[in-house]
Amino acid sequence: MDFSGWTCPAPLRGRERIVMGHGGGGALSAELVEHVFAPAFGGRALSTLADSAALEVDGARLAFSTDSFVVRPLFFPGGSIGDLAVNGTVNDLAMSGARPAYLSCGFLLEEGVELELVARIAEALGAAARTAEVEVATGDTKVVEAGRGDGVYVNTAGIGVIPHGVDIRPQRAAPGDVVIVSGAIGLHGVAVLSRREGLEFEVGVESDCAALGGLVADMLAVTRDLHVLRDPTRGGVAAALNEIAAAASVGVVLQERAVPVPEQVAAACSMLGLDPMYVANEGKLLAFVPRTEADAVLAAMRAHPLGAEAAVIGECVTEHPGMVVARTGLGGTRVVDLPLGEQLPRIC
Amino acid sequence: MDFSGWTCPAPLRGRERIVMGHGGGGALSAELVEHVFAPAFGGRALSTLADSAALEVDGARLAFSTDSFVVRPLFFPGGSIGDLAVNGTVNDLAMSGARPAYLSCGFLLEEGVELELVARIAEALGAAARTAEVEVATGDTKVVEAGRGDGVYVNTAGIGVIPHGVDIRPQRAAPGDVVIVSGAIGLHGVAVLSRREGLEFEVGVESDCAALGGLVADMLAVTRDLHVLRDPTRGGVAAALNEIAAAASVGVVLQERAVPVPEQVAAACSMLGLDPMYVANEGKLLAFVPRTEADAVLAAMRAHPLGAEAAVIGECVTEHPGMVVARTGLGGTRVVDLPLGEQLPRIC
Repeated sequence: MDFSGWTCPAPLRGRERIVMGHGGGGALSAELVEHVFAPAFGGRALSTLADSAALEVDGARLAFSTDSFVVRPLFFPGGSIGDLAVNGTVNDLAMSGARPAYLSCGFLLEEGVELELVARIAEALGAAARTAEVEVATGDTKVVEAGRGDGVYVNTAGIGVIPHGVDIRPQRAAPGDVVIVSGAIGLHGVAVLSRREGLEFEVGVESDCAALGGLVADMLAVTRDLHVLRDPTRGGVAAALNEIAAAASVGVVLQERAVPVPEQVAAACSMLGLDPMYVANEGKLLAFVPRTEADAVLAAMRAHPLGAEAAVIGECVTEHPGMVVARTGLGGTRVVDLPLGEQLPRIC
Repeated sequence: MDFSGWTCPAPLRGRERIVMGHGGGGALSAELVEHVFAPAFGGRALSTLADSAALEVDGARLAFSTDSFVVRPLFFPGGSIGDLAVNGTVNDLAMSGARPAYLSCGFLLEEGVELELVARIAEALGAAARTAEVEVATGDTKVVEAGRGDGVYVNTAGIGVIPHGVDIRPQRAAPGDVVIVSGAIGLHGVAVLSRREGLEFEVGVESDCAALGGLVADMLAVTRDLHVLRDPTRGGVAAALNEIAAAASVGVVLQERAVPVPEQVAAACSMLGLDPMYVANEGKLLAFVPRTEADAVLAAMRAHPLGAEAAVIGECVTEHPGMVVARTGLGGTRVVDLPLGEQLPRIC
């Protein structure tokens, strides 16, 4: 390759090397996309790298998304890297209103890993795909030397079909929108960390890892006019809301007491020094819905097993565009920042 | 996860652990797909895991494929992991006759890798995508701790559009078909290995890494009745022909002297103890074409820069189904086996 005449981007925030936070879904990840990947790839990459892309292909409206999975440990309370590999990508598709249809699956194996472990992960992945009603259509396997991987990494990419008349994206958040969360937050991150730290018996929390395509379909059956859907994974509810506020140049006001945080999650977070608002979820969604549609959408969500505890947690405002603030239980207000990296590396 | 009642597959060839060969594209890879992934994933996975899948989505005929790239070194004579990540997936799509259209791109970075290296790879990937006329539509970045990766791994998945009336797949190989190769073989594998072994100045061989979508389009402009296309990557021409022979239950007879092996490739292979027939290519294709169409297809290939040295190298026969034999220059015959693993690990 001839790179003469090519200029390396300036170090990002003074960093010349990749740090764990570049994979955390926060400000460092966003910077890497904005300053390195988007200029290199051109086209629509800038606007879509963090999401699924909406494509017109041969007359069909498709959503296309990819995620790599490097979670540690590979099995955790409530799921495994196989479940995540399906649900993570399926949910990215569903957040554009698409019906998830097909997955690709790339295994990156470390030499010496037990064949049985690979088979158990494949089995979990297949079962999750059947539950999510998607087909694993194509795959690939690569092996690297011992010490150049960590047992099993998985990449999936997914194709979904976007129904006609549906236009769901972060830019559509509008003042007056009601912000709904589909249920309790913080479960995935706490479940993974509890296993990693050996706390699982004390904590008793299972990951919420689940495929949200069915819940979204039920919401769309009520109204096609959903503005934004987002699954608050890496970086948690805080990162997701900040990205939406920035994309649409709107403010978001949360009622902190309305955010459903289970007691065990609050206790574990307190013990571990975490804020539940920044902890990853793998089976929840945030919805920005016009006020006129909010009651009907909330009712449809509560009628679905994965939305039974759905709650209104805030609203979208014209003030402080790009910023998320929480009204605390004591009547105060605090800014909910975009995290820099991720409190918990390798959470998905 | 509850795995009670679940049975692990028996050890494959007595192996209970993953070895490098499971990622080599030969018999061990095929066994992993057949005994582990296909039973777990169900559906069409069995027939398509080694290829792109052909899908009907919302009225469109799509090809869908994925590949992970773990090549060492990341830059080699004639290309880089960025070029491979585009061309590898684009070529998998093109081998179904599809026009490659969109790529996803997942970076798996090792903590501590230089930002500049990541940027150079992204730049190479973007440039290769523009050359191949595909758009990088969506992406993802994960970071793992130092010592849990190897600088940069890349996964791409791709979507292509299959023209109506085109049905190209290994099962369609038929006795009487002429076997064509689009040009000289062995260049990619020798180029990568020469850099790895520090032989590059003596060898002077560059990778053939290139996107074959344009060449395939020109071939399809002559006739839609191409039976099989295959890019002989991991495992080389030998693995590709064996897979086709097995899939279609036909025999393949090669004229060994007709196979274009450049002098430097032959010399390097001799020095390194390799057989050029098993060495990876990244910008070549094999075509099985009905005899009546062969002259026209060959002429179209030779008119394209990437097919200028196209040559007939053999034919498809009813004898010895599933087996590939080569007639040697001395009038003898030798069996060209499916390799077990890969002579050169981490070649792509």
